[in-house]
Amino acid sequence: MRGHCGLILLAGLAAGCASAPSAELPQPTPHRSMSQVLAEAPDSDWVLADPADLVFMELDSGTVVFHLAEAFAPAHAANIRTLVSEGYFDGLEVIRVQENYVVQWGDGAEEGSAAVRSLGSAAPNLEGEYYRSADGLVITPLGDADAYAPQVGFAHGYPVGSDGEHAWLTHCYGMVGAGRGMEADSGNGSSLYVVIGHAPRHLDRNVTLVGRVLEGMEHLTTLPRGTGPLGFYEDPAQRLPIRRVRLGSQIAPEHRREFELMRTDSRSFEDLIEARRWRREDWFIDPVGHVGLCNVPLPVREKV
Amino acid sequence: MRGHCGLILLAGLAAGCASAPSAELPQPTPHRSMSQVLAEAPDSDWVLADPADLVFMELDSGTVVFHLAEAFAPAHAANIRTLVSEGYFDGLEVIRVQENYVVQWGDGAEEGSAAVRSLGSAAPNLEGEYYRSADGLVITPLGDADAYAPQVGFAHGYPVGSDGEHAWLTHCYGMVGAGRGMEADSGNGSSLYVVIGHAPRHLDRNVTLVGRVLEGMEHLTTLPRGTGPLGFYEDPAQRLPIRRVRLGSQIAPEHRREFELMRTDSRSFEDLIEARRWRREDWFIDPVGHVGLCNVPLPVREKV
Repeated sequence: MRGHCGLILLAGLAAGCASAPSAELPQPTPHRSMSQVLAEAPDSDWVLADPADLVFMELDSGTVVFHLAEAFAPAHAANIRTLVSEGYFDGLEVIRVQENYVVQWGDGAEEGSAAVRSLGSAAPNLEGEYYRSADGLVITPLGDADAYAPQVGFAHGYPVGSDGEHAWLTHCYGMVGAGRGMEADSGNGSSLYVVIGHAPRHLDRNVTLVGRVLEGMEHLTTLPRGTGPLGFYEDPAQRLPIRRVRLGSQIAPEHRREFELMRTDSRSFEDLIEARRWRREDWFIDPVGHVGLCNVPLPVREKV
Repeated sequence: MRGHCGLILLAGLAAGCASAPSAELPQPTPHRSMSQVLAEAPDSDWVLADPADLVFMELDSGTVVFHLAEAFAPAHAANIRTLVSEGYFDGLEVIRVQENYVVQWGDGAEEGSAAVRSLGSAAPNLEGEYYRSADGLVITPLGDADAYAPQVGFAHGYPVGSDGEHAWLTHCYGMVGAGRGMEADSGNGSSLYVVIGHAPRHLDRNVTLVGRVLEGMEHLTTLPRGTGPLGFYEDPAQRLPIRRVRLGSQIAPEHRREFELMRTDSRSFEDLIEARRWRREDWFIDPVGHVGLCNVPLPVREKV
């Protein structure tokens, strides 16, 4: 079971022995580790997030910070900004936690009841922003296969799929989406979810992704799972209150936290993909030679 | 942005328009939904799990049940059976919870200290069981691409990768592995982990997978994340005690819970893959036409 070919296979050097695809890929030289890439990234490889694209959701346990994907879902981002700035989410709740799937928050009041909160000046229905034109979009390719999309890579700080003509955000861990009903235009950003399990990529292009969590995932992933259908909390008392939600742009500059995202069109990010594809840390027996779209970290740092 | 081609693309019928790969796949007829497949699966498409392959780990919050992959890691399965039957895990603890990665349990005592628990008659070092021969292994193919392995599918109830000559278990959500140190033979099954995030497939063939969780993932995934390096709990008081761990075969038949796993070489399972590849539920706008290895559920039912 661990013969000659096997050992060679594990080392990713199987040429002439087994058909290990890692053998066919040229290993980039010189190689930098992920920590080296992060330490050496010049400031020009980072981009300051627009405070109007940052959403701070305060829970009893801490704050979840997420970023709005203006480049992919501008109408949803605008509607969410309206909802947040008018205080729509303040006092609403996390209403659904489904194991290996999503956490969802919004208005838990029964549909059509008098308790349903007004959307204020936000639009009640938005066309789905399931994909955009690939024209003019610089996609840094992953360089490995994907089960769901003919081409995958990264653009504007996000994991994307593409068919060459269109590009779309993908449901990786930590991505934030806008729930919708049966109709394609029934979402509006008032009910949001975040992916907390293995990427449910079948949702790609079926529901509008609006952004991604930058910080505080653990405040959502550790919540008790709902025992109702689809992980909804059966007893309203189980719901987790949302204290307050604010945009970065609503916060005075001297109190505002600022975040920088690594540019996915930078040399640093290309090297980071390679550092994740080829695992040369001493612990690894097989250097792997491959990487999945949702396995590449998207570095974020707080600007201090 | 939502022109004619786009709408057709979303419907998965893009022939002659965009290069959507879903268009190239023949949709199987007739199509059954996942709930239909489960409801209609004949008894012959289920297999009773050997009670000696079932591990019941009792925590304060409930019981985690996992299954040992005898077909892929027989030496580790045997060592774990020895450890469990001699009470090795009773009173040990969950020592590590890393966000979007793993929960790990075992002996938290400082290495080399007098507090380290004896392994009893279990082996202290096992050769890694990183893969096995593909000879004689019936693999039900996934039928979609994978970033990490040239071929992927299912065998003996598990997700597997293969190069035609070897086959190996893959790090999907809920898979259980045996931690190891720097040496390839430094694992023994006394320190176990379960995947709680997006599949860390770079670990495939680098560490021995020993089984998968059948029930009770939520008792592990909701634990507070460790704040030390790699998600280890910094304060021993944060560790979660393990009350007791038993094999199914240690429990008297009248008190024993029994589980049936859907056979992955069955017609029902093939149809289930198709039901997950083609999403024809009314909610879906795009029927997808693809499925990832770790996105196919592996049905389990309790025998009552």
